[in-house]
Amino acid sequence: MQEKLPKPWDPYGKVYVLRLGHRPQRDKRITTHVALVARAFGANGFILAGACDDSVERSLRRTLECWGGEVEYECGVSGRRKVEEWHEMGGEVIHLTMYGVPVDDVIEEIRSSTRPKLIVVGASKVERYYYDAADYNVAVGNQPHSEVAALAVFLDRLYRGRELYSIFYGARARIVPSPRGKTVTGGVEC
Amino acid sequence: MQEKLPKPWDPYGKVYVLRLGHRPQRDKRITTHVALVARAFGANGFILAGACDDSVERSLRRTLECWGGEVEYECGVSGRRKVEEWHEMGGEVIHLTMYGVPVDDVIEEIRSSTRPKLIVVGASKVERYYYDAADYNVAVGNQPHSEVAALAVFLDRLYRGRELYSIFYGARARIVPSPRGKTVTGGVEC
Repeated sequence: MQEKLPKPWDPYGKVYVLRLGHRPQRDKRITTHVALVARAFGANGFILAGACDDSVERSLRRTLECWGGEVEYECGVSGRRKVEEWHEMGGEVIHLTMYGVPVDDVIEEIRSSTRPKLIVVGASKVERYYYDAADYNVAVGNQPHSEVAALAVFLDRLYRGRELYSIFYGARARIVPSPRGKTVTGGVEC
Repeated sequence: MQEKLPKPWDPYGKVYVLRLGHRPQRDKRITTHVALVARAFGANGFILAGACDDSVERSLRRTLECWGGEVEYECGVSGRRKVEEWHEMGGEVIHLTMYGVPVDDVIEEIRSSTRPKLIVVGASKVERYYYDAADYNVAVGNQPHSEVAALAVFLDRLYRGRELYSIFYGARARIVPSPRGKTVTGGVEC
């Protein structure tokens, strides 16, 4: 039995990503990228507020089956209710928005608090409620770009880059880093 | 006259992003996010290989007009030809791929070389040619996630996070970071 290494979210118990404002069809690829970034950068939950979207869930589950890891998936829930739940259980809510305070100004405080973290990312328009309810409104640069990028850079800063070396347990395939080719162990075509 | 601060790409002359494998319609939103991340994280060029896509160009131009900055835009060109041109003018080509070597292993070398940088990001399937022609095949984590995320984290590491403080000249609107609200100066609704 392999000894289990610590997981990125261990200090906090839970690091979940809440995706707001998803419009099925139109947003399915961006939302899938958000879900895959959540997994790859060390979150252990992904919540899709509002309608469910089979194509997002399928992509995430296929990735988990092939490349391993543990991400709880929920959908069809109220985003507000999730924020309330998170506060009730003592967690903190971090809303990523280009209007917020620079990530560097708050990341140490967020990193050193052991409270479970709910990271909220929106699509185009996020309701005022989330700006008020969040413990932190955090900007990864005060420029318009991408919730996919904002989430990745935020988690990369939270974990100081160590998330890139996580072991994903249960993987059927693993990449061996290579300067030139594509080397995959496990013998499975994913 | 405002004194111009150094721009992130100054040490290299050019930091361009080459987007491969774009399928109009299907990829328009992801490719738009790639273009906006290129701008926001300190690239000064964005090249869309293959077909042009008006919706990508429109989003990028609208962002530049409103929020400022300088990004050269090209489309409808051959990706291979661009890589060759880049090498002919003494530049280096960095292909972001989950199969590559960890970003931390090569970022210092890439950062300290003053050669112009062409950062190649693919969609689903990238031709073997690019793995062979690239000076570096670089992985931002050896896990499947998102070219949007990979590009953002790569540029964030290249510039050591300083790109988040860039001044975007010519902006009609600027965000004043705020812990709770949305504060924009310039008086223009973008």
